[in-house]
Amino acid sequence: MSATVDLTAFDAITAPDEQFVEEARRRHEELAKPPGALGRLEELARWWCSVRGQCPAPPPNRAELVIFAGDHGVSAGGVSAYPAEVTAQMVANFLAGGAAANVLAAVGDVNVHVRDLSVDSDYSGLSIPDEVTKWRVRRGSGDIRFADAMSGDEAQLAVRHGIEIADELIDSGADLLLTGDMGIGNTTPATTLIFLLGGGELPDLIGRGTGIDDAGWMRKAAAVRDAARRGRPHRSDPIQLLATVAGPDLAAMTGFLLQAAVRRTPVLLDGLVSGAAALVADRVSFRARHWWAAGHRSAEPAHAVALQRLRLEPLVDLGMRLGEGTGALMAVPVLRAAAASLADMATFAEAGVTNR
Amino acid sequence: MSATVDLTAFDAITAPDEQFVEEARRRHEELAKPPGALGRLEELARWWCSVRGQCPAPPPNRAELVIFAGDHGVSAGGVSAYPAEVTAQMVANFLAGGAAANVLAAVGDVNVHVRDLSVDSDYSGLSIPDEVTKWRVRRGSGDIRFADAMSGDEAQLAVRHGIEIADELIDSGADLLLTGDMGIGNTTPATTLIFLLGGGELPDLIGRGTGIDDAGWMRKAAAVRDAARRGRPHRSDPIQLLATVAGPDLAAMTGFLLQAAVRRTPVLLDGLVSGAAALVADRVSFRARHWWAAGHRSAEPAHAVALQRLRLEPLVDLGMRLGEGTGALMAVPVLRAAAASLADMATFAEAGVTNR
Repeated sequence: MSATVDLTAFDAITAPDEQFVEEARRRHEELAKPPGALGRLEELARWWCSVRGQCPAPPPNRAELVIFAGDHGVSAGGVSAYPAEVTAQMVANFLAGGAAANVLAAVGDVNVHVRDLSVDSDYSGLSIPDEVTKWRVRRGSGDIRFADAMSGDEAQLAVRHGIEIADELIDSGADLLLTGDMGIGNTTPATTLIFLLGGGELPDLIGRGTGIDDAGWMRKAAAVRDAARRGRPHRSDPIQLLATVAGPDLAAMTGFLLQAAVRRTPVLLDGLVSGAAALVADRVSFRARHWWAAGHRSAEPAHAVALQRLRLEPLVDLGMRLGEGTGALMAVPVLRAAAASLADMATFAEAGVTNR
Repeated sequence: MSATVDLTAFDAITAPDEQFVEEARRRHEELAKPPGALGRLEELARWWCSVRGQCPAPPPNRAELVIFAGDHGVSAGGVSAYPAEVTAQMVANFLAGGAAANVLAAVGDVNVHVRDLSVDSDYSGLSIPDEVTKWRVRRGSGDIRFADAMSGDEAQLAVRHGIEIADELIDSGADLLLTGDMGIGNTTPATTLIFLLGGGELPDLIGRGTGIDDAGWMRKAAAVRDAARRGRPHRSDPIQLLATVAGPDLAAMTGFLLQAAVRRTPVLLDGLVSGAAALVADRVSFRARHWWAAGHRSAEPAHAVALQRLRLEPLVDLGMRLGEGTGALMAVPVLRAAAASLADMATFAEAGVTNR
C-alpha cells in the first residue's frame, strides 16, 4: 500500500514562537484594565498570538470543524444506547444542517465538514457527496473485544487521510481547526486509549456515553477491559495501538492533529474522542499539543484524565457529552473574545486613563 | 422629593411561566441527540423559554448592557489600586468604544449604555452626553466607614432611576438586559452588602478588587468591617441599607433588577457588584431572581456567597474580575447557543434518525 506513514516526519514539529507570548503579555499590561483582570482570556490571547505568529492576532477568520465519522464493531456488544445505523443517519443530518454541531457552528461562525472514515453503511436512500465518502478506509471497525479494529495498513491509510484532510483545509485558508466525532460506540475505543495511555482506575473512567443503563455500563467496562488487554503490548507503537483498539476515525483524527502542528495551525479539541486521539498524537510528538487548546470539559470521566495528561485546561464546562465537535464549538466565542480584547481595546495612554 | 419608591409595588412580581419549561423539556427529548447530552445548554434553554414566554424562543435580538457608574467615598481609604479619577475616564472610554466591555459586546452583539449615578467628576475636557449624566444623584458617595453613602431620599431617587433605566430599554424593545458596573472602590460596598445579607466569615470574602497589595487588602477588610457595623441594624430595610453602606450606583442597579422582573424581562448578571445588588433586590422580592441568570463566576470570593444565596449557577468561569459587565457578556454566546439549539435542531423524525 502506497499510503504508509513515516511517523518520524513529525519529529519536525516545533513549539509556537514564545516571542509572541511575550509581546501579548506586554500589550495586556498596557491595555486600560487592571493586570490579569480578564483572567483566562489573557492566557488564551497569548496562546492565540503564539500559534498565529503575530501580536495582536485578529480573531479566527476561517474556522473549520471536521467531524470524523466511523462505526465500531464493539457496538455489537451492547455498549451504546443507540443502534449503529444512527451513525450514517447523523452523517446525513450534518449535511442537511440539522444537528447540534450545525446550530452551534452558526453561532460561532464555523464551517462544518464531515469525513466518513469507516461508516458501516451503503447510505441507501441517502445522497452523500464524494468529498465525504472518499476517505472511507473500511466499513466499520473490528470488534475490539476480540479482534483488531483494522489492519496496520488500514491504520496507516487512515492516519494518511487525516493528514490530507488537514492539508486540504489549511491550503484553502483555514486559520483555526476544530475536531469532532460521530460514531455509535466510539467512546469505548476512546476510553480504552485513554486507559492505556493516561492511566487511572478502569471503573473511574467508564462513562455513560449517549446514556447507557447500568447493565450497558457493565458491558462497556468489560469491553474496555478486554480491549485494553489486547492493546497493552502496543502502547509504544502508535500505529499498531490504533489498529488494535481504535478505528479509522480515531486514527485519522490523530493524523489530522499532528499535521495541524506540522502546518503550525491551531486546533480546538472537542471532548472524549478528540482527547483520546490527542493522547495518541502526543506519543508521536510531545510538542504537538502546544498547537491545541481544549474546548470544553466533557461529562465523560475519562476526558479529565486525557486533559490532565496533555496539560490542557478546558475553556468551558457545561456538562456536555454530545461529541460532534459541540464542545469545541462552544469555545469559539471565548477565543474570539480573547483575540478581540487584545487587538481592539484601548491602552491607558490611548484612552486617557490614569494607570496606577 | 417626588421620586419616592413604593417597594410593595414589587410584590406584584411573579415567577416565569412553568408551562414553557415543560414545553422546552419535551422538545429537547424530540431533538436528534441523546437526552441531556447538551448539559447546561438544555437547562438554560428551558429558562430562556420560560422568561420569554414561548417555546422555542428565538435567541436574543436586542441585548442591552447597562454599566452603572459611580464613585465611592471609601476609596479615600486606600481600598483600591487606582485613583478615583479613573471612573470618569472610563466613562469616556466606554463612550469611545475602547473598553473591554465594548469589545466583548461586539463579539456577543450587545449594545452598551453607560449611566452616571454618582461619578465624582465635572468631566472637564470630556464630552459626555446628557443621556449618560442626567441620572446622577450626587457626586460620589459618602465614606461608608464613617458616614452614610447617601441620604434615604437619594437612595429612593437612585432606585427610581434604575426603574426608569430598565423601563426605557424595555420600552424600546430590549429582550435581554445585562448589568455592569464601573466605579473605583465599588467592590468595598458590594462586599459589605454580601457580608451583611449573605453571611460568611469576613476575611474569606475580601478580594483583591483591581489588584490591591497586602496592606490595601487589610485596609479594605477594615473598611468592610466598619461599614458592616454601621449597616447591620438596617439589614431588613433595603432602602436604608443601600443608603448606609452602598451608593447610588448599587441602588439604581437594585431598582433595575427588580423592574426587569416586573416587566418579565430576563437579565444576565455580571460579577461581584451585580451579585450584591441582586442580593438586595432578592430581599425586596424573592421571586425576582427567577428572571436573572448568572453570567460568570468572578474571581472575587464574595461573589460565590452571593450566587449561592441566590441559588444561581454561573455559566462561564474564566477567572475574570474586571466588572463593566464583561462576565455577563461572556455568557451571551452560551445563551445564543442554548436558544438556537432548541429552536433550530432537527428532531429525530425530521432528520430520519432512529431513536432508541
